[in-house]
Amino acid sequence: MMENRQEGADIAALMNDIGKRARAAAGPLSIASSEQKNLALAEMAAALLRNEDKILAANAVDMANGERAGLSPALLDRLKLDMGRIAGMADGIRAIAALKDPVGDVIAAWERPNGLSIERVRTPLGVIGVIYESRPNVTADAGALCLKAGNAVILRGGSDSAHSSAAIHACMVEGLEKAGLPADAIQRVPVTDRAAVGEMLKGLSGNLDVIVPRGGRSLVERVQNEARVPVFAHLEGICHLYLDKSAKPDMAVAIAVNSKMRRTGICGAAETLLVDRAAADVLLVPVLTALEAAGCEIRGDAEVCARFSAARPAVDEDWSREYLDAIISVKLVDGVGEAISHIGTWSSHHTEAIVAEDDAAVERFFNEIDSAILLHNASTQFADGGEFGMGGEIGIATGKMHARGPVGVEQLTSFKYRVRGNGQLRP
Amino acid sequence: MMENRQEGADIAALMNDIGKRARAAAGPLSIASSEQKNLALAEMAAALLRNEDKILAANAVDMANGERAGLSPALLDRLKLDMGRIAGMADGIRAIAALKDPVGDVIAAWERPNGLSIERVRTPLGVIGVIYESRPNVTADAGALCLKAGNAVILRGGSDSAHSSAAIHACMVEGLEKAGLPADAIQRVPVTDRAAVGEMLKGLSGNLDVIVPRGGRSLVERVQNEARVPVFAHLEGICHLYLDKSAKPDMAVAIAVNSKMRRTGICGAAETLLVDRAAADVLLVPVLTALEAAGCEIRGDAEVCARFSAARPAVDEDWSREYLDAIISVKLVDGVGEAISHIGTWSSHHTEAIVAEDDAAVERFFNEIDSAILLHNASTQFADGGEFGMGGEIGIATGKMHARGPVGVEQLTSFKYRVRGNGQLRP
Repeated sequence: MMENRQEGADIAALMNDIGKRARAAAGPLSIASSEQKNLALAEMAAALLRNEDKILAANAVDMANGERAGLSPALLDRLKLDMGRIAGMADGIRAIAALKDPVGDVIAAWERPNGLSIERVRTPLGVIGVIYESRPNVTADAGALCLKAGNAVILRGGSDSAHSSAAIHACMVEGLEKAGLPADAIQRVPVTDRAAVGEMLKGLSGNLDVIVPRGGRSLVERVQNEARVPVFAHLEGICHLYLDKSAKPDMAVAIAVNSKMRRTGICGAAETLLVDRAAADVLLVPVLTALEAAGCEIRGDAEVCARFSAARPAVDEDWSREYLDAIISVKLVDGVGEAISHIGTWSSHHTEAIVAEDDAAVERFFNEIDSAILLHNASTQFADGGEFGMGGEIGIATGKMHARGPVGVEQLTSFKYRVRGNGQLRP
Repeated sequence: MMENRQEGADIAALMNDIGKRARAAAGPLSIASSEQKNLALAEMAAALLRNEDKILAANAVDMANGERAGLSPALLDRLKLDMGRIAGMADGIRAIAALKDPVGDVIAAWERPNGLSIERVRTPLGVIGVIYESRPNVTADAGALCLKAGNAVILRGGSDSAHSSAAIHACMVEGLEKAGLPADAIQRVPVTDRAAVGEMLKGLSGNLDVIVPRGGRSLVERVQNEARVPVFAHLEGICHLYLDKSAKPDMAVAIAVNSKMRRTGICGAAETLLVDRAAADVLLVPVLTALEAAGCEIRGDAEVCARFSAARPAVDEDWSREYLDAIISVKLVDGVGEAISHIGTWSSHHTEAIVAEDDAAVERFFNEIDSAILLHNASTQFADGGEFGMGGEIGIATGKMHARGPVGVEQLTSFKYRVRGNGQLRP
């Protein structure tokens, strides 16, 4: 008991110190030039490639531990690094270096009748905490994105990937130091104790401005429920695809198969298919046949089951399930109106798509649904910062505060006003 | 005890119901046309003028109660309504009607190499809670701003202004109903029990998206510490005015007097004056003489007191005090660098101004200080949504998430992405 309390106090002190050092690093970082930040990024990419052997050796330790601990093949695959994946990390960092520096960007500018000239310019947010699980590459991606936006970052990876993350982190610090930036700009929490996460959720005495959880539902849920600082996250992606009666059948089939089956484990994968009853004859069976042929299990409402014998009956929970698997729930609806109301009831406000040629249906879908991403005649799997041209993302947010949708470098900034006058007094 | 628990349960149920009704109203409100919202605003303004007698009668009750309760003259002045102030509320609502509708505004648009066209468009935030104290006009201002941005609002005014706020609220509801909008779009909490505030801070079961506290330090502090939902607020405005050695002396005098003395009780009033030591001979005495002549008490560091005999010695707490009164703390600094570091230590990140002719000093001041509003050669008292051309503000925020500086209709919105394709599949 005494010992535990002692440990708890140690971790609180450790985390507090990490927070203070991050805040101290955020100052010089916020006014670092684009050139200096980009130099650091280039040096990080080079260090990753140069230290490939060390990273692979560290990863081998994590993999061996993971196998002993009986991690699932899916988790082991996420954990595994090879030369290709290390090169991918380096390329990702270089892509972030190539992005426009968001800091100092003038978002809006206007003049007042009294001659005051007002600009709203982007500034860094400050200190960002990233809490993630088994993917070691988050160490590189998140570190690079935060740096580009002038933020200090505190990375807390899972214990499974501790050795790999430490080796990658060393390369990030090498890049910072070679560019003359503070090493504390990218810190890694060196303990895997869950109490460290608890300290981050409390906000490190005001030294943490936002938390980004990257991982499974239970991690995100804990962070959303307990964090005393803002959180950029999505709990789940219950994404809908609606096929309107005006849809081109071939396009409907192709988009349905891609939205569901390209990768079933990502948050932008479609989980529910809504089909316009007025075109069920031409759309439903071809689409379900193609999905089934691609290996997808169909769970339909009574009408769907009556029309497509391979469908299993859906139960109520199927409309709120993020399968992250080759399963889709299917329902007939009376046009775009009922599609919108079904989505309003069941959606997680992540991503929804409509296939339609009727502009009025598309406009209603776009106006009346309040989800982060709405797509017309395109796969739901485009819900991704890279696909949006943001050069990377630290996550996807479904909240409505500050960041929504893919969280890229712009979303990792705040802003301030610069007002220029020539002696104006307020009357 | 039993009775208290019963009352607590009643208030929880009442507030929960208010939250549910606000969320239900937010749906139709989010897709209401600009014309419909502007019609509601015009009808609200007309109803305020038409019901002037009722509002004044209700206000007389509040004033009589306030006098009996021994409210200070300043509080009674905030509470008091007359024909001019009612006309001012109506004009304020009409000014908000004249603003561009932020909802549906395309903030950014770009095209991807694969032909996807991406737009980021503004959407309402949802349900906004406003907790305020004695000023009854907040009922009209906040109600109108939230409506313009397509949000439902829950208004919780103080008990001092309960009768006045109820009479004003009735006019707001009349406007909503005349325009065919849900009456629940602008709700007023009908009880003055503090437990109602507690329920709002807990977020009304997910039916409250953001809280805006308008009032004194203790209210804002409680809201910031206890709220489980985002808060747009500033705890205090410890605003600095720095006079650089390159400043024009006449401009420095005029801006110092206006920044401090135009109105001493507002958050944008200057509280600390920093004077460049290199120009102390030409700037310090003229500026302090003018401030003293305007009725301001001077609290200076040792050097200031040595140079200006009417100054009282400042103590440490003077650098972190928001006087909201005719008092200013004054310090000599070694140029813009020391000014920036003093501000970094003591500022509340609200508003800071520099008077200077040297562009390099201005650029450092603008780049290195992370406050919501930075001004060059202009009074700090311009820190105001109306003065920024926002047509009004629901408050000023010093946080870095979502809204910062004056919170106008644009800051009361979120955004979503609309992506248009012609059959794109993700490879």
